[in-house]
Amino acid sequence: MTDVASSCRWGILGAASIARKNVRAMHLADNATPLAIASRTFEKAAAFAAEHGLDRAHGSYEALLEDPDVDAVYVPLPTTLHREWTIRAAEAGKHVLCEKPVAANASDVEAMIEACRDAGVQFMDGLMFMHHARMRRVESTLQRLGPEPDLVTSRFSFRGDAAFFENNIRGNADTEPLGCVGDLGWYCIRIALEVMGGMPDSVRARHHRLHGAIPIHSSAELDFPGRDGVRHAFIQCSFVHPLAQWVEICGAEGSMRLDDFVIGSPTEAVIQLETESRLTEQDLVHERRLERLVTEDCVQEVEMIRRFSDLARGALPLEPIWGVRSHETQRIVDAIMSSASVDGARVPIAP
Amino acid sequence: MTDVASSCRWGILGAASIARKNVRAMHLADNATPLAIASRTFEKAAAFAAEHGLDRAHGSYEALLEDPDVDAVYVPLPTTLHREWTIRAAEAGKHVLCEKPVAANASDVEAMIEACRDAGVQFMDGLMFMHHARMRRVESTLQRLGPEPDLVTSRFSFRGDAAFFENNIRGNADTEPLGCVGDLGWYCIRIALEVMGGMPDSVRARHHRLHGAIPIHSSAELDFPGRDGVRHAFIQCSFVHPLAQWVEICGAEGSMRLDDFVIGSPTEAVIQLETESRLTEQDLVHERRLERLVTEDCVQEVEMIRRFSDLARGALPLEPIWGVRSHETQRIVDAIMSSASVDGARVPIAP
Repeated sequence: MTDVASSCRWGILGAASIARKNVRAMHLADNATPLAIASRTFEKAAAFAAEHGLDRAHGSYEALLEDPDVDAVYVPLPTTLHREWTIRAAEAGKHVLCEKPVAANASDVEAMIEACRDAGVQFMDGLMFMHHARMRRVESTLQRLGPEPDLVTSRFSFRGDAAFFENNIRGNADTEPLGCVGDLGWYCIRIALEVMGGMPDSVRARHHRLHGAIPIHSSAELDFPGRDGVRHAFIQCSFVHPLAQWVEICGAEGSMRLDDFVIGSPTEAVIQLETESRLTEQDLVHERRLERLVTEDCVQEVEMIRRFSDLARGALPLEPIWGVRSHETQRIVDAIMSSASVDGARVPIAP
Repeated sequence: MTDVASSCRWGILGAASIARKNVRAMHLADNATPLAIASRTFEKAAAFAAEHGLDRAHGSYEALLEDPDVDAVYVPLPTTLHREWTIRAAEAGKHVLCEKPVAANASDVEAMIEACRDAGVQFMDGLMFMHHARMRRVESTLQRLGPEPDLVTSRFSFRGDAAFFENNIRGNADTEPLGCVGDLGWYCIRIALEVMGGMPDSVRARHHRLHGAIPIHSSAELDFPGRDGVRHAFIQCSFVHPLAQWVEICGAEGSMRLDDFVIGSPTEAVIQLETESRLTEQDLVHERRLERLVTEDCVQEVEMIRRFSDLARGALPLEPIWGVRSHETQRIVDAIMSSASVDGARVPIAP
């Protein structure tokens, strides 16, 4: 095993606007150094480097992968380019933090995580919320909901304006074929997977609105096996509705609600927990007893970069679970797309 | 037209526990007099009358309908008895406030509202929330959500204990064949109808859990025609999950959330309105701007009894719209049961 480096030196593959948030996080995390940016032109890379405090600019993705000082790459490229550049990065010995959706389909994800495994590098998708301290609180609070959670409902939506649909890659079928399912549903699926503790065995889904060929408003039902029968997750995702990013988790004895699970507040991340509310006196009144669990201050993207940097610099052993979760999430995305293509018919998911 | 009476004199058909809340409301409403109770035995009726301050007890439903001093009846009987006793009450010249679900199916509802129309008496179902002052606020605030609301999501659930499933009529297929769909889904359907301003043209639904033959956890999707395409309502109802009674209403420009739409607080009924929240600076931060619209104090069941009493005593002209809405709600319940019986296949609803 190599020595533990003091800092993970990062390269950014592509000057996407989403990259700005993670570059800022690399500046803030004490074990990370944002070192280099690559774009398809040197000018664009140099401008991004100057603006965001990076030392090096590369005029091609290849050049960045050949930079021996880069330990890890962050891949905010359009989805259909993730496969190629993740595999090339792994082959160049770089750890890979890849934006979601991870790929166009699950077989691409398999190839990507296999390449990372073969190269002995970490793979992780860029789901910041998973690194918020609140998620640990969610996990440790699940037991207060009863034997096992059996109903998860979530919605992630925002309203794209005309410019979004014309210019944003998320409105382009060549680069983002999964539309709102890949971009927003990814979060809803992941939190359902985490909470349910395993894969669903079938999926039903519908696209309610399309923009050209890509879904911009979709919903899905996931059926999970459970100890006492089928358990359910209901997911809504949309580019044509107001900002919403909530999840509600129910078990037999209680429920949790997070109003901002995707972009959790850095200073007041709340879990609304109800375990005592009930109808009383034959519905004469109801009592709502709400506990507000407030999590310690936490900037989730900084925690993600810190975690990944520790994995990349050898301070922690590699964690294959992140690739497994990405693959599971992508398999569900694929099933949602399949079901929606046959108007919501049930699509089984192999164990 | 007869003179306007100063008070509507009420008879209660059946000593159900749910009746206690409305009897209390009759005591509180200044235009209502709770006069008589009927049960299948005189002893039971007399005990209820003594406990709840009613002057008269009748040992049969027929006897109450023959009581010339009764202007209006409240029917909290098991669902499958609603048709017979509503029609007999109408034929006896009594106005009818009927518990939900109104009947076992839509053709029964047609017969009931036809009988009321023929007799010139008011029909209304017992949805208290419709009479909460907050609902007027919801209606007048809808325009702030954009041209038309296009997404309504709601859940009404509570957790029945063993006694509930063994003894409560809601757990009995003979008297309550519609289970949670009739008992709880009724509210979710109604608020969707009110907000969408018309009927859906198709329904898909699944029963996720049964107790014997009756559904105790179900979900449904309603597709409504809209100016800019299909609009959607998602409904969850359950006897096996913790207390929840929320609705979220979205349009293009904003959303409203009511955390307690079914049993709204008498002193602090809130609408959470978001019209300004958005992702900003390419997702670097999001701004949540929540307006809390707090409604004036309102005890919704008293408002319902007051309204109905004004209709029954001739202070207001009869309002056929209540029967129309009951019928529409029941048609959707029927479609949900049909769709669930074919594993969620689309069931069209005729215009």
